Amino acid sequence: MSEQISIGLYLFKRLHELGVRGVHGVPGDFNLAALDLLPDAGLYWVGNCNELNAAYAADGYARIKGISALVTTFGVGELSALAGVAGAYSEHVPIVHLVGVPHTASQKRGLLLHHTLGNGDFRVFEKMSENISVTQTLLDDHSKAADEIDRVLSACWVKARPVYIGLPTNMVFKTVDASRLETPLDLSIPPNNEETEDAVVSEICELIYKSKNTIILADACAIRHRVLDELHELIERTELPAFVSPMGKGAINEESSSFGGVYVGDASRDDVRQRVDDAELILYVGGLQSDFNSGGFTYHVAKKNTVEFHSDHMKIRYSEFPGIQMKSVFRKLLDILDYSKIQKHPTTEISNTIPRRERESISSEINHAYFWPRVGQWLNPGDVVITETGTSNFGILETRFPKDVTAISQVLWGSIGFSVGALQGAALACKEMSPERRVILFVGDGSLQLTVQEISTMIRHGLKPIIFVLNNKGYTIERIIHGMKAIYNDIQPWNHQEILHLFSADPEHSDSYQVKTKTELENLFRNEKFCSAPHIQLVEVFMPWQDAPRALLKIGQATAALNAKA
Amino acid sequence: MSEQISIGLYLFKRLHELGVRGVHGVPGDFNLAALDLLPDAGLYWVGNCNELNAAYAADGYARIKGISALVTTFGVGELSALAGVAGAYSEHVPIVHLVGVPHTASQKRGLLLHHTLGNGDFRVFEKMSENISVTQTLLDDHSKAADEIDRVLSACWVKARPVYIGLPTNMVFKTVDASRLETPLDLSIPPNNEETEDAVVSEICELIYKSKNTIILADACAIRHRVLDELHELIERTELPAFVSPMGKGAINEESSSFGGVYVGDASRDDVRQRVDDAELILYVGGLQSDFNSGGFTYHVAKKNTVEFHSDHMKIRYSEFPGIQMKSVFRKLLDILDYSKIQKHPTTEISNTIPRRERESISSEINHAYFWPRVGQWLNPGDVVITETGTSNFGILETRFPKDVTAISQVLWGSIGFSVGALQGAALACKEMSPERRVILFVGDGSLQLTVQEISTMIRHGLKPIIFVLNNKGYTIERIIHGMKAIYNDIQPWNHQEILHLFSADPEHSDSYQVKTKTELENLFRNEKFCSAPHIQLVEVFMPWQDAPRALLKIGQATAALNAKA
Repeated sequence: MSEQISIGLYLFKRLHELGVRGVHGVPGDFNLAALDLLPDAGLYWVGNCNELNAAYAADGYARIKGISALVTTFGVGELSALAGVAGAYSEHVPIVHLVGVPHTASQKRGLLLHHTLGNGDFRVFEKMSENISVTQTLLDDHSKAADEIDRVLSACWVKARPVYIGLPTNMVFKTVDASRLETPLDLSIPPNNEETEDAVVSEICELIYKSKNTIILADACAIRHRVLDELHELIERTELPAFVSPMGKGAINEESSSFGGVYVGDASRDDVRQRVDDAELILYVGGLQSDFNSGGFTYHVAKKNTVEFHSDHMKIRYSEFPGIQMKSVFRKLLDILDYSKIQKHPTTEISNTIPRRERESISSEINHAYFWPRVGQWLNPGDVVITETGTSNFGILETRFPKDVTAISQVLWGSIGFSVGALQGAALACKEMSPERRVILFVGDGSLQLTVQEISTMIRHGLKPIIFVLNNKGYTIERIIHGMKAIYNDIQPWNHQEILHLFSADPEHSDSYQVKTKTELENLFRNEKFCSAPHIQLVEVFMPWQDAPRALLKIGQATAALNAKA
Repeated sequence: MSEQISIGLYLFKRLHELGVRGVHGVPGDFNLAALDLLPDAGLYWVGNCNELNAAYAADGYARIKGISALVTTFGVGELSALAGVAGAYSEHVPIVHLVGVPHTASQKRGLLLHHTLGNGDFRVFEKMSENISVTQTLLDDHSKAADEIDRVLSACWVKARPVYIGLPTNMVFKTVDASRLETPLDLSIPPNNEETEDAVVSEICELIYKSKNTIILADACAIRHRVLDELHELIERTELPAFVSPMGKGAINEESSSFGGVYVGDASRDDVRQRVDDAELILYVGGLQSDFNSGGFTYHVAKKNTVEFHSDHMKIRYSEFPGIQMKSVFRKLLDILDYSKIQKHPTTEISNTIPRRERESISSEINHAYFWPRVGQWLNPGDVVITETGTSNFGILETRFPKDVTAISQVLWGSIGFSVGALQGAALACKEMSPERRVILFVGDGSLQLTVQEISTMIRHGLKPIIFVLNNKGYTIERIIHGMKAIYNDIQPWNHQEILHLFSADPEHSDSYQVKTKTELENLFRNEKFCSAPHIQLVEVFMPWQDAPRALLKIGQATAALNAKA
């Protein structure tokens, strides 16, 4: 008989193969025994404070490392994580959601176990997760378990979205053939039909040669479906002006002279909007035209001028090409394109210049118009920048990034509190891969309250993030949309300076700051120790409660109007 | 035309009619406009820190006030609350889950809005909630809205379980006939078939007259389906020995001489188990035989000796009577029973005596065997006692309650962190109804980490709970089940003394204590100011990390065995 390996260990070794090291989640009695096996596969346990935070953290981790694992327990644990997993589904982030479920015999007998709805239905939670995962499996048959694990993990990677695995307590130590691990998982994208692909590529070439004014617009799925190398090469070789959507922030080198800014339809800077609207041809890569990503559906990008690159289809003007994926199209396009035939048109100039009005203002208050370009000046190449749904997600649009900045936000799903969990995951991923990168969070005081305890997990793992808490006394994004002074947009004020202490940060290896004026901000940004991110740091930045970034004011109005329309 | 009222206000006035005052939830742009209407209906906004906590709080509030309302926003908000709503479904607690959903026109057009999965499916979240609510409605037609609201709210009350209402942003101010409000909601339980009911009652009478040794066993649904008055009358008039299950804790007067203790199958105290097992006839009221509620399925209650009272059926020995509900059976039974024919047998004696071993121990450590009876001596009549899934839920079984204590716990669903949210809701409900009641929480340091921020909401509303944090360095309940020293059962230690300060409690109107020895605990329990619960108080009680209540040790072993069985 060939060498055997337990199902639990097989699964964890496959996760290791995919690059997972830290495993996020919360222990529960239906997953405990499996957790014993993590070290044997070279993995380690993160141990989050709650499951929703763990899901957000797994999301952040996957955005850095390519994939992540989240372990919860049956019923109570998995449902607590749903909103986070749904976000990953919505935003195309691959998370392996592993749920420890009751013994197969208990399930068959319909026992009235704890963590159930008391109705003997053991598949109800998996059914709920079907809506937010690309595929699911219940490992209740050891003869199929290895096949199922491989199938599900490959789908997670290739489709870049969550999958669901139910692991009954009694199946963890059942065994499968260990030699299977010698064959790596198949992570290849199904190849395009070559004839169709050739036609698509040559049509794109013709359109490019004909156009006097072509631009590139990069969006979320360019990042998530792993075509950044191809995209960068296209920009460098064509020297075409390149723009990003809010969800595409970080997809291209914003230091490059090709960079033209952030396009958000009507909520764009005027010159950027004009420049994009004037284009004769748009190469739109990985598009995801949600309301907040498109300035409230105000893209003025005519279909007749657009080539859309997607992970599972291409679109050229009015024609769709289902099943033709962009990655391979890109490679062929890069090979075939006659770069000498491309006509160029200058792009807009984007910088981190603080508006003159702000520079000359006598007010010492830190407002958004001042803050975000100033942050842009302060950022370093390679930083990871996480912004919360709220003012930060809109403010960051005013920040021109240095090279190699990774941006993490959740513009489509927009779950308040996401960023704090995501920070933990991203910072842990950087600790594993590239500890020299700074990991920086911008979160409002309102959003922080949802998930604050994950700062405890950061301290537990010795992570060194810089956390900017924008203290503007409540839910400013909601105020802009509806109820500027309404009580439901207020929050209980917190003493943010106590946070690190509550969670037992070592006073010698942590710092908390309060920043109330521009001068104090300037001093902080010139503080070398602070800038070197030697340990966990929390900066409370006081901002006027009714102030908001320019793009939020525009989109907030559009959203309010859409909600209220009779 | 008759007087009109907006759909939003109609709904809120109906909630007011049901007794709701504080409305739990988190604002989001799809529910903001509706929130403006709360004051017009005599309701007010609680404003929780996150949605899961809000759901737990709504659960706690409903257990005191009979029903509660939870408002979330589409997608992100509602999914975050699911694990809490599922708990209410599992444990029979009526919560009206009101979700602010996008404009009906946006839904019809399948717009790629924020807070969606990006696939144009606007019903997916409602579909997920179908599994954890007794009925649902989407108020997208103003001509049916009032009917639908009445139907759904009545179902919530009568079935004592959650319901789901989707309210599109544009429907809030559409109007319905205001005069409908003059007719109260129909909250009546459907009447029993009289002939069947008569037969059931007379058969029960015969069984009681015949039995030499009848006992009463009260369980969760006696509380949830509102038969406590009938149950108390039965115990008083029959003077039969009366026991409770863990989930039935608080259902009967434990000061009464009839009280025989907590029955948890094999995990019961020996004399209690013996007494119940010896009974010739058991009147089992509102039973819910889940594993943790039944000592790991070790009830030795033979069907042939049992009459089961349920909210939707009765069971006499081997015969079922579907559709015959207990409340009306109870009333008839109380009227018809010839109390002189009942044969009595003495019950066990239950007290809060601290075991001699503990009293005489030279150790100053506070262990569970000492703590829980001592708590029982300290409790006052009318206290509300909330215990967390973990050591507290098992420890409280060793506490004999004074009269009129309400107990809140989540033994079946068992979601870790539940109790902190539930405390907020229960304390708010008491502030509204009976501010003289003390509201007391027992939560472990591990569980506290999941939902700690809801203490902020308690401070915001001036609530005065007493929070006992049992600091035993991690997830002790998990350690007992599996992995006594495993790293995944450890947690980051917190400085619990900072909690109230972080959340901006007024130092003059809040107190934090640390209790490490029996003497310190005695001093605290003799501190009159502390005992009078004048403001929010947090007591950190240090306990040995590997110590656990007696019942947990027994059930933990059974659970571990069930999980591990090949």
